[in-house]
Amino acid sequence: MSASTSNSISTNEQPSSISVQRYSAPLVAELVANAAALGCVVSTHETGATIVDAGIQVPGGLEAGRLIAEICMGGLGNVALRHVPQFANWPLSVVVTAKQPVIACLGSQYAGWALSHEKFFSLGSGPARAIAQREEVFKDINYRDQGEQSVLVLETDKVPPAAVIEKVSKDTGLPANKLTFILTPTRSVAGSLQVTARVLEVALHKCHALHFDLSAIVDGYGIAPVPAPSPDFIVGMGRTNDAILFGGFVQLFVNTDDAAAEALATQLPSSASKDYGRPFAEVFKAVNMDFYQIDPMLFSPAKVSVSNVKTGRTFFAGKFNEDLLNQSFGS
Amino acid sequence: MSASTSNSISTNEQPSSISVQRYSAPLVAELVANAAALGCVVSTHETGATIVDAGIQVPGGLEAGRLIAEICMGGLGNVALRHVPQFANWPLSVVVTAKQPVIACLGSQYAGWALSHEKFFSLGSGPARAIAQREEVFKDINYRDQGEQSVLVLETDKVPPAAVIEKVSKDTGLPANKLTFILTPTRSVAGSLQVTARVLEVALHKCHALHFDLSAIVDGYGIAPVPAPSPDFIVGMGRTNDAILFGGFVQLFVNTDDAAAEALATQLPSSASKDYGRPFAEVFKAVNMDFYQIDPMLFSPAKVSVSNVKTGRTFFAGKFNEDLLNQSFGS
Amino acid sequence: MSASTSNSISTNEQPSSISVQRYSAPLVAELVANAAALGCVVSTHETGATIVDAGIQVPGGLEAGRLIAEICMGGLGNVALRHVPQFANWPLSVVVTAKQPVIACLGSQYAGWALSHEKFFSLGSGPARAIAQREEVFKDINYRDQGEQSVLVLETDKVPPAAVIEKVSKDTGLPANKLTFILTPTRSVAGSLQVTARVLEVALHKCHALHFDLSAIVDGYGIAPVPAPSPDFIVGMGRTNDAILFGGFVQLFVNTDDAAAEALATQLPSSASKDYGRPFAEVFKAVNMDFYQIDPMLFSPAKVSVSNVKTGRTFFAGKFNEDLLNQSFGS
Repeated sequence: MSASTSNSISTNEQPSSISVQRYSAPLVAELVANAAALGCVVSTHETGATIVDAGIQVPGGLEAGRLIAEICMGGLGNVALRHVPQFANWPLSVVVTAKQPVIACLGSQYAGWALSHEKFFSLGSGPARAIAQREEVFKDINYRDQGEQSVLVLETDKVPPAAVIEKVSKDTGLPANKLTFILTPTRSVAGSLQVTARVLEVALHKCHALHFDLSAIVDGYGIAPVPAPSPDFIVGMGRTNDAILFGGFVQLFVNTDDAAAEALATQLPSSASKDYGRPFAEVFKAVNMDFYQIDPMLFSPAKVSVSNVKTGRTFFAGKFNEDLLNQSFGS
Repeated sequence: MSASTSNSISTNEQPSSISVQRYSAPLVAELVANAAALGCVVSTHETGATIVDAGIQVPGGLEAGRLIAEICMGGLGNVALRHVPQFANWPLSVVVTAKQPVIACLGSQYAGWALSHEKFFSLGSGPARAIAQREEVFKDINYRDQGEQSVLVLETDKVPPAAVIEKVSKDTGLPANKLTFILTPTRSVAGSLQVTARVLEVALHKCHALHFDLSAIVDGYGIAPVPAPSPDFIVGMGRTNDAILFGGFVQLFVNTDDAAAEALATQLPSSASKDYGRPFAEVFKAVNMDFYQIDPMLFSPAKVSVSNVKTGRTFFAGKFNEDLLNQSFGS
Repeated sequence: MSASTSNSISTNEQPSSISVQRYSAPLVAELVANAAALGCVVSTHETGATIVDAGIQVPGGLEAGRLIAEICMGGLGNVALRHVPQFANWPLSVVVTAKQPVIACLGSQYAGWALSHEKFFSLGSGPARAIAQREEVFKDINYRDQGEQSVLVLETDKVPPAAVIEKVSKDTGLPANKLTFILTPTRSVAGSLQVTARVLEVALHKCHALHFDLSAIVDGYGIAPVPAPSPDFIVGMGRTNDAILFGGFVQLFVNTDDAAAEALATQLPSSASKDYGRPFAEVFKAVNMDFYQIDPMLFSPAKVSVSNVKTGRTFFAGKFNEDLLNQSFGS
């Protein structure tokens, strides 16, 4: 990004960084201030950390899930509920756009920070990841953030033990009382929505897995139908995956040559994976619930468009699969 | 709603109530501050009350109607204009979500407060109802609000007489100069929109009439096509009803057993009523305009989904009726 | 607009004008403050004017384009990205509503201020037009604004020379350091989006060209699919026109007699023009790129509804043309 647009002008000072801490802070404040109305409850952990329960002992509704998804995206995303009559039974959809999609999705939203202690295990998502820098992906996207407070979203139905919070505190260099943990079990409406809202992130993560040049991604948006949650963890988790694999759509705007754009479009949809073809819960059970045996190329939207701003051409690939979507959501 | 999520954490103080006065106040201020741009006009009644004319002597457009619908919902609702090409002739649609749908819709938006004096009659909708507690429904939802100012929306084409304002003042315990009355005749674009925006409220009100346990309603959303207003009161009122009866859709998330969820889905759509089958204006004329002779089960969306978070199952019922919608909107 | 709604009430003081400068100022501040995240860069011109590059040396993404479109509309418009599966290949759409559509679209958004100096030529759009009053249209809509700062949007890929900025300064009576110029080349995503967001403006401009009484326009909204930008100026400009001509839809609410409403509906769609029938780039090349040889009636949405609030009747005309849309967007 050049700082000058002509010889005749001088450049104003720009913000030193695009901070996901700074952009997400007002959203966290909004969630906490309106917790009761949002069907959430706020408490203080013995470590001093703030805990927002968004679906364990409280309902955690659609609007809570929407707001939490925007927090996951570091305040750079716009997550909106839409009625899109594309699939007859499942019109409720979540549409995701973002300022700086690569930072919003891979630098913040991606649930890539494995946190465990004894029986507790959860993948952390959200702004704190960009301070802690515990994952390889940060080198590839060349993004690091800092801040005086931070937030992490955990897809869990248990309050994290002190050891986990202390680990986050240590890795971010922030005292526990400057950390907020938002807990969203997949079995809550909020949890189901916030996972489905990863449709754009899933596409960008697959771009990364395909070694597509992330700096060539100019913009993008995604949409997926929102499943009803299930009390069965595997069924519920399966649905949020199937929402994207069979019902998700992403358009990316890239700046590259047409061969690279076309190759990306061809490889990006879920149907390009060898594991495509049945509900995710079945795939998961077939590998004895060992994620690492699933083809990583499966995790991607059903349908994509890749528009190349360098040439003006758009490449299309993939297809929706309403039958499998109905099978999964209606199971 | 439990205040603690684990033995190891202490609960922060929660807001003592989810106040529809507090949530709606900034929206009322926005309506008044931008009245000219919104096609409304603000004046002071002889009693000291603030009057917002949103369609009597002024146009009162779509954005005014949208904002007023959010005020009706006590600031807990999100009312949005959408283009949904579901019905070929009537793509303009209103989508309604809410924090705490039962409070937003039944505790605030429902037009249940009958206000009359001599020739003036209007049904009051909005936050002031939750202070005044004049209706049985408040016992059933166990909701009461308080505040130092309040607002009531009247679907009327006349400025209310002093006696009506004094009655509202008495029943809320607030001086007239702390009350705002928003007037939206059905014949204005704003009025037509704000009535159609009751699609979710109509569904929840029918849940109540069906004696479904309202505390089992976790969340929900609704959508209906927006009719053009008519200068003929019965035609215009008929259209706003038909928008919901023939074109409305609602999804509810409930937490109950499947038998109750399925029974609710089966009974909820308008087509379950014995009076279903012709435009509302005809039904209304056939009973000599006596609302109380109409089957109360008629007032409901065309189509519904009921998703049970306790089991993960979703039940579907009802159908759209585009022919009757076209007959009504095009009359 | 009458200031009193009854004999029994006194009118509060209304804002002296609906100021597009005042409504747009917070949006300009937001664009400048978040420039880095929005893929824009801010600099100071030698004249002291603020320059926002939204697509020349920087990417300028969807959210930048959306915000700039709202600035073009003087802060009175709501410009939103939507997924509308109306055209199989091009679901990304822009929906436009407005407080006071005539002021927002013709008094601010219309790109009617021709600015040239030596080799530089651009059409200015946005709030500064309403202060400068350099165009005939301001007499017809009877709108004039004032303010202590202003903003102009230029669809250009060059920074304007000092002479152009000095002309804007002179015509608005504002010093250059109180002026912001936003530069959006059509070849950027932001530029492509902000031009497509003119779908409602194009309809209102054609109402004006048809000598329809603009004061009879109560409200309206529009939608069009968003094309991918092209590095070829004529292809890219052609696509933004075709988005509206073949894929655009507008509904207007008018207050007039049915004969006038029906005549407007009949004449309003692009298909009513003698130049309708092939991609815009072809039409443009066929007249050797001389705009003034193109039928002015061509510039209009594909499909329209005109709802007459005086009678309650709605008139429909026009049709989408997905084949030509695909031919244009996929060229």
